[in-house]
Amino acid sequence: MPAAPPAVSTSVSERFAAVRTQTERLCEGLVTEDYVVQSMADVSPTKWHLAHTTWFWETFVLTPHADGYALYDERYPFLFNSYYVQAGERHCRAQRGYLSRPTVEEVFAYRHHVTDAMRRFLDAGGADSDAVAGVIEVGLNHEQQHQELMVTDLKHVFSVNPLRPALRERPLVGAENPGPLGWRPFEAGLHEIGKALGGATAAERFHFDNEGPRHRAFVEAFEIGDRLVTCGEYAEFIADGGYDAAPLWLSLGWAEREARGWAEPFYWERDEDAPLGFSHYTLAGMRPVDPHEPVTHLTYFEADAYARWAGARLPSEAEWEVAARSVWDGSGEAPAPPTAFVEGERFHPNAAASPAGGDGAPSAGDGAGLRQMFGEAWQWTHSQYSPYPGYRPVEGALGEYNGKFMANQFVLRGGSVATPRAHIRPTYRNFFPPEAAWQFTGLRLARSA
Amino acid sequence: MPAAPPAVSTSVSERFAAVRTQTERLCEGLVTEDYVVQSMADVSPTKWHLAHTTWFWETFVLTPHADGYALYDERYPFLFNSYYVQAGERHCRAQRGYLSRPTVEEVFAYRHHVTDAMRRFLDAGGADSDAVAGVIEVGLNHEQQHQELMVTDLKHVFSVNPLRPALRERPLVGAENPGPLGWRPFEAGLHEIGKALGGATAAERFHFDNEGPRHRAFVEAFEIGDRLVTCGEYAEFIADGGYDAAPLWLSLGWAEREARGWAEPFYWERDEDAPLGFSHYTLAGMRPVDPHEPVTHLTYFEADAYARWAGARLPSEAEWEVAARSVWDGSGEAPAPPTAFVEGERFHPNAAASPAGGDGAPSAGDGAGLRQMFGEAWQWTHSQYSPYPGYRPVEGALGEYNGKFMANQFVLRGGSVATPRAHIRPTYRNFFPPEAAWQFTGLRLARSA
Amino acid sequence: MPAAPPAVSTSVSERFAAVRTQTERLCEGLVTEDYVVQSMADVSPTKWHLAHTTWFWETFVLTPHADGYALYDERYPFLFNSYYVQAGERHCRAQRGYLSRPTVEEVFAYRHHVTDAMRRFLDAGGADSDAVAGVIEVGLNHEQQHQELMVTDLKHVFSVNPLRPALRERPLVGAENPGPLGWRPFEAGLHEIGKALGGATAAERFHFDNEGPRHRAFVEAFEIGDRLVTCGEYAEFIADGGYDAAPLWLSLGWAEREARGWAEPFYWERDEDAPLGFSHYTLAGMRPVDPHEPVTHLTYFEADAYARWAGARLPSEAEWEVAARSVWDGSGEAPAPPTAFVEGERFHPNAAASPAGGDGAPSAGDGAGLRQMFGEAWQWTHSQYSPYPGYRPVEGALGEYNGKFMANQFVLRGGSVATPRAHIRPTYRNFFPPEAAWQFTGLRLARSA
Amino acid sequence: MPAAPPAVSTSVSERFAAVRTQTERLCEGLVTEDYVVQSMADVSPTKWHLAHTTWFWETFVLTPHADGYALYDERYPFLFNSYYVQAGERHCRAQRGYLSRPTVEEVFAYRHHVTDAMRRFLDAGGADSDAVAGVIEVGLNHEQQHQELMVTDLKHVFSVNPLRPALRERPLVGAENPGPLGWRPFEAGLHEIGKALGGATAAERFHFDNEGPRHRAFVEAFEIGDRLVTCGEYAEFIADGGYDAAPLWLSLGWAEREARGWAEPFYWERDEDAPLGFSHYTLAGMRPVDPHEPVTHLTYFEADAYARWAGARLPSEAEWEVAARSVWDGSGEAPAPPTAFVEGERFHPNAAASPAGGDGAPSAGDGAGLRQMFGEAWQWTHSQYSPYPGYRPVEGALGEYNGKFMANQFVLRGGSVATPRAHIRPTYRNFFPPEAAWQFTGLRLARSA
Repeated sequence: MPAAPPAVSTSVSERFAAVRTQTERLCEGLVTEDYVVQSMADVSPTKWHLAHTTWFWETFVLTPHADGYALYDERYPFLFNSYYVQAGERHCRAQRGYLSRPTVEEVFAYRHHVTDAMRRFLDAGGADSDAVAGVIEVGLNHEQQHQELMVTDLKHVFSVNPLRPALRERPLVGAENPGPLGWRPFEAGLHEIGKALGGATAAERFHFDNEGPRHRAFVEAFEIGDRLVTCGEYAEFIADGGYDAAPLWLSLGWAEREARGWAEPFYWERDEDAPLGFSHYTLAGMRPVDPHEPVTHLTYFEADAYARWAGARLPSEAEWEVAARSVWDGSGEAPAPPTAFVEGERFHPNAAASPAGGDGAPSAGDGAGLRQMFGEAWQWTHSQYSPYPGYRPVEGALGEYNGKFMANQFVLRGGSVATPRAHIRPTYRNFFPPEAAWQFTGLRLARSA
Repeated sequence: MPAAPPAVSTSVSERFAAVRTQTERLCEGLVTEDYVVQSMADVSPTKWHLAHTTWFWETFVLTPHADGYALYDERYPFLFNSYYVQAGERHCRAQRGYLSRPTVEEVFAYRHHVTDAMRRFLDAGGADSDAVAGVIEVGLNHEQQHQELMVTDLKHVFSVNPLRPALRERPLVGAENPGPLGWRPFEAGLHEIGKALGGATAAERFHFDNEGPRHRAFVEAFEIGDRLVTCGEYAEFIADGGYDAAPLWLSLGWAEREARGWAEPFYWERDEDAPLGFSHYTLAGMRPVDPHEPVTHLTYFEADAYARWAGARLPSEAEWEVAARSVWDGSGEAPAPPTAFVEGERFHPNAAASPAGGDGAPSAGDGAGLRQMFGEAWQWTHSQYSPYPGYRPVEGALGEYNGKFMANQFVLRGGSVATPRAHIRPTYRNFFPPEAAWQFTGLRLARSA
Repeated sequence: MPAAPPAVSTSVSERFAAVRTQTERLCEGLVTEDYVVQSMADVSPTKWHLAHTTWFWETFVLTPHADGYALYDERYPFLFNSYYVQAGERHCRAQRGYLSRPTVEEVFAYRHHVTDAMRRFLDAGGADSDAVAGVIEVGLNHEQQHQELMVTDLKHVFSVNPLRPALRERPLVGAENPGPLGWRPFEAGLHEIGKALGGATAAERFHFDNEGPRHRAFVEAFEIGDRLVTCGEYAEFIADGGYDAAPLWLSLGWAEREARGWAEPFYWERDEDAPLGFSHYTLAGMRPVDPHEPVTHLTYFEADAYARWAGARLPSEAEWEVAARSVWDGSGEAPAPPTAFVEGERFHPNAAASPAGGDGAPSAGDGAGLRQMFGEAWQWTHSQYSPYPGYRPVEGALGEYNGKFMANQFVLRGGSVATPRAHIRPTYRNFFPPEAAWQFTGLRLARSA
Repeated sequence: MPAAPPAVSTSVSERFAAVRTQTERLCEGLVTEDYVVQSMADVSPTKWHLAHTTWFWETFVLTPHADGYALYDERYPFLFNSYYVQAGERHCRAQRGYLSRPTVEEVFAYRHHVTDAMRRFLDAGGADSDAVAGVIEVGLNHEQQHQELMVTDLKHVFSVNPLRPALRERPLVGAENPGPLGWRPFEAGLHEIGKALGGATAAERFHFDNEGPRHRAFVEAFEIGDRLVTCGEYAEFIADGGYDAAPLWLSLGWAEREARGWAEPFYWERDEDAPLGFSHYTLAGMRPVDPHEPVTHLTYFEADAYARWAGARLPSEAEWEVAARSVWDGSGEAPAPPTAFVEGERFHPNAAASPAGGDGAPSAGDGAGLRQMFGEAWQWTHSQYSPYPGYRPVEGALGEYNGKFMANQFVLRGGSVATPRAHIRPTYRNFFPPEAAWQFTGLRLARSA
C-alpha cells in the first residue's frame, strides 16, 4: 500500500519527518552489500545518498543555526560533500564505491542523530526566520532529488549484476493500449514563463533559482502530443533502421552511437522470445518490453532522432510549460494517477489511460486531453539548459546548485516514477547531458503549426 | 594593399571569381611544406582546404548540373569530402595531415581545372535556375567559411612550431586607448529575429538555413557593452585570481581548466619583459600582448567566467541581434573600418577607435555608439545553438550543413579579422563547442536592466 | 597467537582443511561492507576471492571427478571464473566490485558446501589417482596464491579510504638497526636451475609448470646483498634526487614516473612529523616509515633505479636461485623466523635480524649470512618472465596458469609477509608487470664480480 | 643498379661519405610533401631523419672536437635531438609532423654544411684519437639505423594514404617455391655469446654496448628452421582460425588483438582476387601476397602464436646466435645474396632460394643449410631484451643508446631488406615492443631437441 504523499500544507516539522522517512522507505528490501556499490561514475552508492542528505542538514542548518550543535564526526564532511566547492574539499566522486567504511549501520546512526537534532531544532521554532525557512525548503527538495537518484542508481547497480536482482517483485500484466497519438494545438502568444516569488507559505513560495525570474516569452503556434511515445512506437523506429540512418541523428549523437554501439535503448536487450523482440531490465527484474508502456531511458540523441524519424520534433521548454499549465489545477500538487511518482512504488512507468479515461473516468491531470504530463517519465525538450533573463544564483555555497551546470545539458520536464510527487511544478527544470540515459527519460512529440 | 571586397551587386560569375581568387591570395608567402601540416584534429591542412572547396563545386554543381562534366580524379571525392554523410564515404578527419599526395601542385591543378569549368558553366547561364543559383550561393559562402579556417588553422600550425614563423610581418605599434567601457541600453520588446526570405537577388536572399525562419521573440530590457573587452581588462581578471576562483566558472569549464591547466588565454605565454606580463603568438609572430587590443582566442568558459567576475554576463543571441540591427545600415555589407575582416590582411583584431571616432570622424558601424560589432572578433553569446521555431534543414546532403550540430555548441556573432566581409549579416549564427579557442573568439558584455 | 603452518607430511585431506581454514582466518575482523569493494582493476573483492577459490575446486575436481556432484548454483561459474578461457565465459574483471549479490553470507554458504563436498571426496579416496592428486596440489597452491591477494587487495581497499581503517592493530615499536649491507660472493659455474620431477609425495613433487624443466645455466661470478634494502637507505635515494634523475631510470619507467607523478613509493606520503619525513599506510593503519624495515611496494622501475643509484644492480633469477639454494635446508619449508609469511599475521615486513642473529642466535635461514631471503618481501630480479628451455604448459584450462603471461613481466622471488609459508620454494617464480606496486615488493642488490 | 656497399676496410672518411650518400640516395623519387608527414608516433618524417642524423655529428663530434666549429643554427638542437636526455631538451616526438619549417631545402643545406665540416675534420686527422674514432663508429652505425627507419617510416606514411603511392616501381613476378621447411640440429653446450673487444680497426672493434661483454651461456640442444616462415604457411594459420584461438596467444597479445581487431598481419588486406585471399601494401604499391615470400610485419604476439600453432616455438637469442655463427664466414660482412639488405633497393624480402641453391649454386650464407639468416627480415626471438652479465652502458649521453630500453621489449636478430649490409653482425641485438609491426619483422621457428 503506497504511502500518502506529504501534503504541502502540513508543518515544516512534519514535512521534514515525512521526507526523511520516505528516503529510508526506499531502502526496504536491501541487504547490506547493496548499499556499497557504485556501478559507474554517475551512480552513487545508496549509503552515500543516505549520508550526503544528512550532511546537507548538518552543514547548512545545524552547524550555522543550531546553538551548541557539534559535528557528529569531523571526517564526514570531506566524505559526504558532493560538489559544493565553497563548502570545502570533497572526496572524489568516482571513488564513492571504494568506501567500505563507515558501515551502513554507522551511516544510519549518523542519519538518526541528525534527524533527531533537526526535529528538536524545528520544534523549537528554528525555522521561523525567513532565511532559515528558505534553506530548509532547499534541503527538503534536495533530499527529494536524492530519493529519485537512489531509485535510478539502484536500478543501474542491479542491472549490471548478471544475477539481475529485483528491488520489488511485481506481477507481469500486459498494459492496455492507450490508442493512437493525438495532437493538442496551442496558439501563438506572449506567455509568462517561470516561477514568481509569491505564495502563502515558504513551501508554496519555494522554487529553485533556475526557475526564475518570471519573464515574458513569445511562443509561436505549436501542437504537442497528447501522451508519451510508447515502446511499441519506438520499436518501429528500430525496425525501420533508425539506429543506422545517420541523417536522423545529430552529429554528436551519431559519434556517440558509433563509439558505444547503441542499437536500442539503455536496459533493452534483444530477446527472441519477447513480443517486441526485446526484454529490458526493470526494478522488478528482466521483463519483456511492453508495447503500450512509454519508452524510457532514452538519451537526448535517441529522443531527437526518433522525433525526426516521426516527422516531428521535441518541444521547447516554453512550449512544454505552456501546455503543462493548461492541465495544472492549482492545487499545488501534480495531477497524475495515484500510482504515478515514487510514492506509487511502481518504479516503472504505466501505459497512458485510454483517452476516455480507460476505466470510464478521466484521470487526474488529463484535462485538455493531455495525458502523462507528470510523474511517469521525464520528457526531453530541445532547449539547452540556460539562464532565464535576469537570472541570479543565490549567494554562497547553495548558489552552486544550478547555475554552474549551464553548458552542454538539455532541459527535461514533468518528473518520473522515481520523483516525489510534492517535488514537481510546471516550472520545474531538470537537466542532463544529452548522452545520459540512466534516469527515467522519455519523450513527448511536438510540431510547429 | 588589401583587395577591395567583392560587391554584392556584381554578377555571380564575377563573385565566384573573386571568392576563388581570395582563397588563393591567402596562400601568399607559404612554402610547400606549410600546406601539408595538421597540428590538431580541429585543424585541416591548407592543401585540404584548397581541395575541399574545389570538391564542393564539383560535387554539388558540376557533376549534377554541367552537361558532360567528368570527375577530375575519381579518388578525390573520398579524400576531400568533409562530413557530408549523404555525399559518400570520407577520409578520416584526424588523418588529413597524413597525406603527402596529391601534392600541392596537383591540388592547384585540380583547383584551376574546376574553377575554369565553373566559369564556363556560369558564363553559359548555368546559374539561371533558382535551384542552381541557391546552391552557388551556398558554395560561395562555404568557401568563405574555409577562408576563415585557412587563417585560423595556419595560425595554429605556425604556433606549435618552436621557430614561430610569421604569415605576414607587421610593424609593432602600440594601440591607442579605446577609453572606458560604456553601456548602451535597449528597452524590452517583441522583435523579429532571423532572416526573412525576401531580397532582389539570390545573393541578397541568401542565408544559411539556421538563420531562419524569421520569428518573434520577446527580449527583456538589457544593456550591452559599447566595445569588446580588452586584453588589459582581461589581464586584471587574471591578476585577480580569476583562473583559480571556482565560483566564477561553469562546472564543466572548471573541469576543463583543471584537466588542461588553463591559466591564461590560448596563445598567451608568460613573459616578464612584456608590459602586461604576457606575450602571444600572432600571425606576425610572437608579440607582447597589447592592453588596448581586444582579447581573443577565449573559450566560452573563459568569456563566461570573465563576465561573471566583471559583474555582468554574456548577451543572448537575440540581444546581440537587436543591438546589431541598430547599427546595420542596410547597405548589405557590414559596417566596419577598412582594416577589419580578412581582406584587411591584419589577421589580428584592432583596438576600438575612441568613442569620438579617434581620428575625429566616426567609424563606419559605430552608429548608436556601438563599436567593433563586426569583423574584429567573434562574440560569444550565452545562447546554446538551437533551431529557431519552425526550422527545417534543406533537403539532401546540403541539409547536413547546420542542423546536425545543434548540441553542446554556443552561438557566436559578428565575424572576425579572418572572416570575409561579404559573408556577415546581423542574423549570421556561428557556433563552436565551449572549449574551442583556436578561432578569433572574444567577448562583449551585457547585463539585464 | 599465529597458527602453525600445515606440515607438508600431513594427509591431503588435512592439508585441504588447513588451507580452507587459513583463507577464512584472514577474514577475521572484516565487516560485511569490506568484502564488496574493488578499489582498482588489479584488486578483487574479498568476497570474490572466497568464491573464486571455491569455484576452482568445483570446476576442476568435483564436477569432473566426484560422482553425482551437481553445481551449487548454475550462475556462479560465469561470475567466479577468473581468466581460464577454456573453462568458459567470464564476468568482466574490472566489474567485480559492482556485484552486491550474491551476498557475503551466500558466498560463505557456497564455500562451506564445496568444502564439505571436497572433504567427503577426499576422505573417500578421491585423490588417490595421480591425475586427481596433481589437480588437488594445483588447487591448494592456487588458494594459497589468493590468500596473498586477499591481504594485498584489502590493503589497497583500506588505503584509498580516507578513514584509513586497520585490518589488525599492532603496537608501534621501532625496529632494531640491521647494520650495514654486506655482500656474499658466488663463483662462476654451471648450475641446475628449476624444479625436477622427483619427490616422495604429490606435495613434494608439486611445482608450477613454469618452474621446470630443470635445466643447466651458466652463471658468471657475482655478489649478492646479505639483506633487503631498508626504508632508510631508500629515503637517501629520494633525498639525493633519485626521482628526478632521468639517467637512473629505464626509459619506460621515466615515462610512467612523469605520467603518474611518482616521487616516493606507493603508500608513502610526505609527513613532516615522521622521522624520515614520510608516513605510509600499513594494515595496522598509517605509521611513520621505519628506517630499519625493508622498503616495499616498489615498482620494478623504482627498484632498478635505486640499484643503479647505489652502484649495483638487481640479481638475475638464476643468481637469486643459486644464492637461495645455499641457505635452503632441504626440510621442505622455507627457512625464516616464525613471524615471517602470512601465518605470522604481521602483514608488514620485519627488519632484518642483526648479522650475529640479534638475540644471540642465528635466525633460521640465515646460513651463509643471507638474511631475509624468504617470507618478508618479494625481490625483483632483472629477469623478464620467460619459459625455461623445453618448457611445456600442462594440457587444458590449467595450462593457462602461467605460460600465457610471458611478456612484459619481471620475475620476483622469495615470498612475502602475505605469502603462505608452505607455498614457497627456492625455484618459485612470481611475476608482475614492472609498474605494479600493490604487492609487498622489495629489493635485494647484486653486482658482477 | 644497386650501389656496392662500403667495404669495411676503406678509410673512415670514405666510409663517412658513403653512409651520408646512402642516406640521401634513399630519398630518390620523393616530392617535398613526402618529407613532412608523421603518420603515427613511432614514425618520424624523412626530413627529421635527415636533420637528426646531422645533429648527431654536430653534437657529438664537431661541437666538442672540431676547433672553431659554430652551431649551424642555435634552434636546431632542440628540434632534432631525439631522446638523449643528457644532450638537452627535446621537441616532443609525437609532434615531429607538425613542423613545416625548417623546409626540406633548409634541412639539406644544414646536412651539406655538416657533411662538409665533418669531411674537413676527418681529412685533418680528427678521428685519429681512439675516443673520437669510437664516437665516429657510433655515428656511422646510428645513421645506418636511421636509414632503416627512413624506409620503414616511409612505408607507413605511404600506406595510410588512400592513393597508395609507391617508392619504387617493381615488376610483379611470382616467387619460386622454397620447398618445405627443414630443421638444423645443434647440440647442447657452453657457448661464448656476444662481442669481444678485439679487432684490427675501429670498425672491426665496433659494437653497441648491449652486445657485450662476451660471456658464457649454456645452451640446451635445439633445432632451428632452415628458412623463414612464408606467407603461404602463415595464411594456413589464418585459415585454421589462428586469430580466434585464444589458447595460442599470450594473454597480453590476446588483449591487443581484441582491442585492435587484428585478423591478419599489418599491411595485409582481404582481397578476393588475390591467390591467397590477401593483398598487402609494399613499397612498390599494393600487391597480392605471394605464398613463397617470407611473412613479415608480424608483431611478437603473432609470431609467437604462429609458432605455437605450428607445434614449435621461437628461438632464444642465444640459440639464434649459435646458429648464425655457424654460417658466418668471418669476412666481416653478412653472408646474403646481393639483393638482400637495403642496398639491394628491393625494400621487400625475397623468397628463399631452393635448398640446393635454386639456380644450381649455393647462395652466399647458406652454409649449414641455413637460409635467410641475414638481410631479409628481422627474426623475433623469445628473449626479452635484458643486459648481459657484466653489462655497463658507456658514459655520458651516448650511454642512453641501449640500456635504458631494457623493459617490455623483445630481441630480434638478422637484419632486413631495410638494414645496411655493413651494419649487421651475428651478435647484433635489435629490440622492439611485442606489439610493434611496422618494421620488417618475420619469424624463424625453433624447437627443443
